[in-house]
Amino acid sequence: MSTDTEHTDGVANPVHVIDEQLLVDAIASGERERVQELIAPLHYSDLADVLEHLSADERQALVNVIGVDLDADVLSELDDAVREDIIEHLGVDYVASAVVELETDDAVQVVEDLDEEDQKQVLDAIPVGDRALIEEGLAYPEDSAGRLMQREVVTVPEFWTIGETIDFMREQTDDGGSLPEQFYDIFVIDPQFKPLGSIPLSRLLRGKRSDKVIDTMTEEMKLIPVAMDQEEVAFLFRQRDLVSAPVIDDDGRLVGAITVDDVVDVIHEEHEEDIMRMGGVREDDLYDAAVDTVRSRFSWLLVNLGTAILASVIIGFFEGTIDQIVALAVLMPIVASMGGNAGTQTLTVTVRALAMKELTTTNALRVVGKELIVSGFNGVLFAALTGGVAWFWFDSQAIGVVIAMAMIVNMVVAGLAGTTIPLFLERNGIDPAVASSVLLTTVTDVVGFASFLGLAAWFLL
Amino acid sequence: MSTDTEHTDGVANPVHVIDEQLLVDAIASGERERVQELIAPLHYSDLADVLEHLSADERQALVNVIGVDLDADVLSELDDAVREDIIEHLGVDYVASAVVELETDDAVQVVEDLDEEDQKQVLDAIPVGDRALIEEGLAYPEDSAGRLMQREVVTVPEFWTIGETIDFMREQTDDGGSLPEQFYDIFVIDPQFKPLGSIPLSRLLRGKRSDKVIDTMTEEMKLIPVAMDQEEVAFLFRQRDLVSAPVIDDDGRLVGAITVDDVVDVIHEEHEEDIMRMGGVREDDLYDAAVDTVRSRFSWLLVNLGTAILASVIIGFFEGTIDQIVALAVLMPIVASMGGNAGTQTLTVTVRALAMKELTTTNALRVVGKELIVSGFNGVLFAALTGGVAWFWFDSQAIGVVIAMAMIVNMVVAGLAGTTIPLFLERNGIDPAVASSVLLTTVTDVVGFASFLGLAAWFLL
Repeated sequence: MSTDTEHTDGVANPVHVIDEQLLVDAIASGERERVQELIAPLHYSDLADVLEHLSADERQALVNVIGVDLDADVLSELDDAVREDIIEHLGVDYVASAVVELETDDAVQVVEDLDEEDQKQVLDAIPVGDRALIEEGLAYPEDSAGRLMQREVVTVPEFWTIGETIDFMREQTDDGGSLPEQFYDIFVIDPQFKPLGSIPLSRLLRGKRSDKVIDTMTEEMKLIPVAMDQEEVAFLFRQRDLVSAPVIDDDGRLVGAITVDDVVDVIHEEHEEDIMRMGGVREDDLYDAAVDTVRSRFSWLLVNLGTAILASVIIGFFEGTIDQIVALAVLMPIVASMGGNAGTQTLTVTVRALAMKELTTTNALRVVGKELIVSGFNGVLFAALTGGVAWFWFDSQAIGVVIAMAMIVNMVVAGLAGTTIPLFLERNGIDPAVASSVLLTTVTDVVGFASFLGLAAWFLL
Repeated sequence: MSTDTEHTDGVANPVHVIDEQLLVDAIASGERERVQELIAPLHYSDLADVLEHLSADERQALVNVIGVDLDADVLSELDDAVREDIIEHLGVDYVASAVVELETDDAVQVVEDLDEEDQKQVLDAIPVGDRALIEEGLAYPEDSAGRLMQREVVTVPEFWTIGETIDFMREQTDDGGSLPEQFYDIFVIDPQFKPLGSIPLSRLLRGKRSDKVIDTMTEEMKLIPVAMDQEEVAFLFRQRDLVSAPVIDDDGRLVGAITVDDVVDVIHEEHEEDIMRMGGVREDDLYDAAVDTVRSRFSWLLVNLGTAILASVIIGFFEGTIDQIVALAVLMPIVASMGGNAGTQTLTVTVRALAMKELTTTNALRVVGKELIVSGFNGVLFAALTGGVAWFWFDSQAIGVVIAMAMIVNMVVAGLAGTTIPLFLERNGIDPAVASSVLLTTVTDVVGFASFLGLAAWFLL
């Protein structure tokens, strides 16, 4: 009985059911059988993880041991960069035979990442029926519901009974069948293949054999247009607690279904993207080769160099002032830094609220107003603190007053910029997660240095 | 037939099926019937959204119109701050009757956020049976599998057939029954209530009536210990593409099941938490009152003030140097800023990889090594760029060389700090998402100012 071991693993270390160091050692010493023995009990997701964690050389050695027996599901779980590496290794024939074993959504996911040449070769090597389904999937725009859906769906005509439905499904099994591996709802369709309603299996099971499907089904269901962006799909699933949903084409005909496991992956992917973008990096960064990482991070740092130089230019205007009071050079980063941090807090809340559709025209003005109040309050508090520190440090009440005033100015500006920059970008169709933070820090640096040094030049000289 | 309208809504605006401005206007002019008419067609999730978007006054007015007819499910979808507000309004009796209608996991979620006094009153007003289940749920640690699970599970003894199982479920319906509203797997248990295996409904439906459940079930299932943290639960669901999973107590007995819709909420919640923490704000920030927001952001800004002052102290050591070459004051923020940005890129990748368990002892050293190479390369590139700019700007080759050297030093340190700080924090049980970025910018500011001004003092004076 495998449940007991599963249980123990679950408590101690729910993820890595394998000691990777043992595997690395076995690979290093070339013990093929030991390697096979270690990976044999692994779930395909866990094997995919192991392949991701290994170095390129270790991975190559492991793939050599497994060879074309590599489970097709492992492929679909892999990070793009690692998958490419492995596919290059195992060749087009392996990929073609693996892809056939997958459900259409997973197959499309594997094929879409191949370069054009390989994609053509793989598709040519696939039987016509499967190829057509995959090519149809590829015809939908990237990140659309069409790419995400599986084509295998259980549909029944409106005049059937529950008994007929169950008998139909039992027969399908004997054929090998065209039913999906797992499904949660069946869909009732009209003669034009338009969905009329859905029946969750738990309800189907409890119905009487003589009940009509049309009396059992729920009419209220969320129909997903095939072109809908996957982020919208994920939002709908979360909002409505869906487990599966029918996908329809432009004529309203049922063409597939999306299941929640794929949506969970999308949520996760979008999550990665959000966080990575806010940090100025690309998604695949971890598994990219160093040279690709250098290149992809360079452009972001270049933008930042531009804004840093802009801030320096502002300081440059006040060279004369700093020359007379060096204390200003010592204190000026404090004003800029506090503005940047306060602004980032506001920005984070605003960008998230936009992404979660929690910020609408109804409440936008109220949110901006609240942020102004919050930043004003904190501005006064930190003006008092910083002013006090500066006063005692340089024994000059005037410097204390100047830094306090600059602090209030910069923190209020930070609160305003932290809300209005993302709102402005969103309204102009630019992803606020990417561009907001560099614009914000430019504003808080420029205003921070300019207000502090400007006030100093005015009052202290 | 509602499908057509659903379709149109889905395409045009999948989220807000209501024009909130119309509702706000109707509330403002006190048209009760118009308000009721507008909200009547809303799904409970959408009504929850609307309630969140309204101002406190508008919300109060809307709740007054709806009264105790407010769907219990709306309550469980609301943000904590808004829910508290509404509960305060509708009173303990309403909450008690609403909670009874919810499944145990949702009920526990509503009750756990009440203050102690209200919690006691609500529990006292609930019938004994429901109360016991909720109290048991509350007894599990917060954010544990126990809080997340529903108690309603379909279990069958190992000696049953599929036919008996289906008949059993049909009977339950007639009773009103103790079956969950929706379920996806049934669990086969031994006489001690220990789970032996699970059967997805799609397989149960396709089996023959005479088949034994014990021959149909999958033994390989992930058992979730009742104390497991919800983040671990979410990871498992994603990793294994689960739709539901059995939860067991310390003796290995089945006590409930977790379904994927709750896990999607957890993933979402953890996502919010990650992003908010990295931005230095609390989760509920958007719906908090301004005074709470000021307070919660203050502490984070205070920590940042400390690090900003520390950086100023470093600059203070070089007051004499700056006094002689004012250009240093103009240029010094560039070195610190570039280090901060490069470090943040590295940090983002590392923190995410740790959260996703993609960074293990097997590859930690390799990742640190790669980051050093990347930051070294980019350090050299930006040293050349910045050095050139500084040289031409201040017409001094020496200043160009000094800023170039400082840039290389700071960017390599940033790469090293960006990987080692989160690894160190994680190993010491501190959440890297919270503390990493403030530590990192402290390091890059201090090293940035110290290296630039120090090298300048050494070479230029």
